[in-house]
Amino acid sequence: MKERRNIAIIGTGVTKFGELFEHSYDDLVREAGLAAIRDAGIAMDEVQAAWLSTAFPEIGVFKGRSGMDLSEPLNLYDIPVTRVSNFCASGADAIRNAANALEAGECDVAMALGVEKLRDRSPQDSIVKMMVELSHPYYQKGFTAAGTFAVYANRMMHEYGVTREDIANISVKNHYHGTLNEKAHHRVACSLDQVLSSPMVADPLTVMDSCPTTDGAACVIMVRADDVDPTRHDPVYIHGVGLSISTGWDLPFFDPHHDFLSFKATQNAANMAYTQAGITNPMDQIDLVEVHDCFSIVEMLTYEDLGLCKKGEAKELIRGKATMLGGETPVNVSGGLLSCGHPVGATGVRMVVEVAAHLRGRAGDRQVEGATTGVTHNIGGPGAIASVIVLSNEN
Amino acid sequence: MKERRNIAIIGTGVTKFGELFEHSYDDLVREAGLAAIRDAGIAMDEVQAAWLSTAFPEIGVFKGRSGMDLSEPLNLYDIPVTRVSNFCASGADAIRNAANALEAGECDVAMALGVEKLRDRSPQDSIVKMMVELSHPYYQKGFTAAGTFAVYANRMMHEYGVTREDIANISVKNHYHGTLNEKAHHRVACSLDQVLSSPMVADPLTVMDSCPTTDGAACVIMVRADDVDPTRHDPVYIHGVGLSISTGWDLPFFDPHHDFLSFKATQNAANMAYTQAGITNPMDQIDLVEVHDCFSIVEMLTYEDLGLCKKGEAKELIRGKATMLGGETPVNVSGGLLSCGHPVGATGVRMVVEVAAHLRGRAGDRQVEGATTGVTHNIGGPGAIASVIVLSNEN
Repeated sequence: MKERRNIAIIGTGVTKFGELFEHSYDDLVREAGLAAIRDAGIAMDEVQAAWLSTAFPEIGVFKGRSGMDLSEPLNLYDIPVTRVSNFCASGADAIRNAANALEAGECDVAMALGVEKLRDRSPQDSIVKMMVELSHPYYQKGFTAAGTFAVYANRMMHEYGVTREDIANISVKNHYHGTLNEKAHHRVACSLDQVLSSPMVADPLTVMDSCPTTDGAACVIMVRADDVDPTRHDPVYIHGVGLSISTGWDLPFFDPHHDFLSFKATQNAANMAYTQAGITNPMDQIDLVEVHDCFSIVEMLTYEDLGLCKKGEAKELIRGKATMLGGETPVNVSGGLLSCGHPVGATGVRMVVEVAAHLRGRAGDRQVEGATTGVTHNIGGPGAIASVIVLSNEN
Repeated sequence: MKERRNIAIIGTGVTKFGELFEHSYDDLVREAGLAAIRDAGIAMDEVQAAWLSTAFPEIGVFKGRSGMDLSEPLNLYDIPVTRVSNFCASGADAIRNAANALEAGECDVAMALGVEKLRDRSPQDSIVKMMVELSHPYYQKGFTAAGTFAVYANRMMHEYGVTREDIANISVKNHYHGTLNEKAHHRVACSLDQVLSSPMVADPLTVMDSCPTTDGAACVIMVRADDVDPTRHDPVYIHGVGLSISTGWDLPFFDPHHDFLSFKATQNAANMAYTQAGITNPMDQIDLVEVHDCFSIVEMLTYEDLGLCKKGEAKELIRGKATMLGGETPVNVSGGLLSCGHPVGATGVRMVVEVAAHLRGRAGDRQVEGATTGVTHNIGGPGAIASVIVLSNEN
């Protein structure tokens, strides 16, 4: 797809992210869905098709294995509802498939809703157990997410002169941003020393370099740009959607020359989305970015993969505070995954809700002033599945 | 979407269905995917986007939770691959989302592949355990799939003068058809007496009224009809795709007047697909149908829901052998789920592969002569999610 997309977001909704024992999966679907419907100024029965993103029913509350788990809480029947799952890119992929359906003319009003409830299970019966018992044999050898991204951190430090403090300062930045976001899971600022001295997970990454697992939901209502009614809607436009799957953590077996300094999936997804959106100079054309900072180092790597700086210069963005609120290209002003937490199926949609708030000038204390173009990014599975969405308040 | 779709299937592939201990999930993906690619006469790297349908990773072999499980076995990287799951309608939904992407212009060549591997686990550790422990509380009270569909069977017998023999004769018919299908799980004909005297599951349904759980995969390659090259391709066209979610087995709580004689989801999905395809008289316009005969009674109900006969007259189609090979509108000449088995994520795609074979005149011993229009149908979850696809060899 070479041309720009023709899709507008006319409503967004997001729940509080956190350890929400008092809210069921259905409660979260209902809250995010109704908020988005209200924001769009439409009735629920105007939605003609929906996409539900839940990545891990089997390590959450066993909900979200079909579209029924969107239909039932929203009383939204007699339409197609597809459940998609693509690890951390699930939410973006729900939006992507909804955009395709609108472009195809299958429907005129689409909903994309991401939700995940991960905290109701004990750690002994949750994601860690699942990973160890059921996933790739590497996990059983300790090659966890943290362990893998730690390899990238060490390579960045070795090759590019990145310091441990540079990496930790991403966590400091995002936790500061999180204090400004009433929906974030953790709203506590932290110091560089706190990040460095928190318990080690996989050298050099500590607990404070790692995002929490979280409950939450987010939703967007989408129409074709031609159907935007300027008297009723305050639209944000989708200019590009890229999703790409590459080899993952097992990549060295496919490519023994892999440098562990970048993610090919992110580069491909960005290339797709930028081509659709006509972005040729990301540094100048993008005003804010939500990046998949599941670990602090991933945000740093991604600066380079998204073209926000040249290879090897990500550290300069941190040192110059360019990606802090008030800087040239603020990144994760929501607080990122590090503060918001990571309800996996919801995260990609939450990011789009966040960027849309800035493009609509509704982001309150953390508003990126004058933002016209924003980008969201996810990377999931074993560093193999990435998504990039380009949003703008102009069309 | 009012207009007819503009999508062609140019390649199909299907594995043997059965208890395939000697084939891994990846083996099945590879076999079905490569067969479809060869049939389409294209190279693997011409595929620009793909959709993977696996319904039950957690009760199968824990594969199919993301698009990676299509990319890796096919070495098909650097493109978007979405995993969809929608219970028994998963395969049809993969095709639907691929069709949307083609219509949207996101890609020019799309793959939809369904796969499920259910037999590697013991019955004590498989679908039954999952259903009882983790799903709807009704299951815990014995309200299983068989138990529910048995209620419909009893209502059909009570209201419409359907006999137990009418229902069992669907199984006899489909098992006969299955003897003609080298890919079917069970290729053994059975007598009426054998169906009636096999062990009772839920009165009146016996084991022989029930489909087996099965391993298998199926794949289609799709392009826009404008891109069909008549010198290379032998296309089949998708004229309509409908998918709808209604309330399910809990429907009496929403509608105490529900008659347990039809599935609203099937009726809605058929209405969507027929409207797109311009089908106003299904009895005359449809030449063959693959129906979701997870239990024999479901095929009978679905005759009426698909408009193949008037309300209450389904029994006449069986008694007159109208839906048998050689009859007016053959149904499940593949052997249906009763003979082929039911690898859940694969079934909807397998049906499309089957109908395409007939429309291309390649169905061998079970060819429906002169078929130009065929329909596939799935119903899943608690009778709540249905899909209908209309295929034709004319455009």
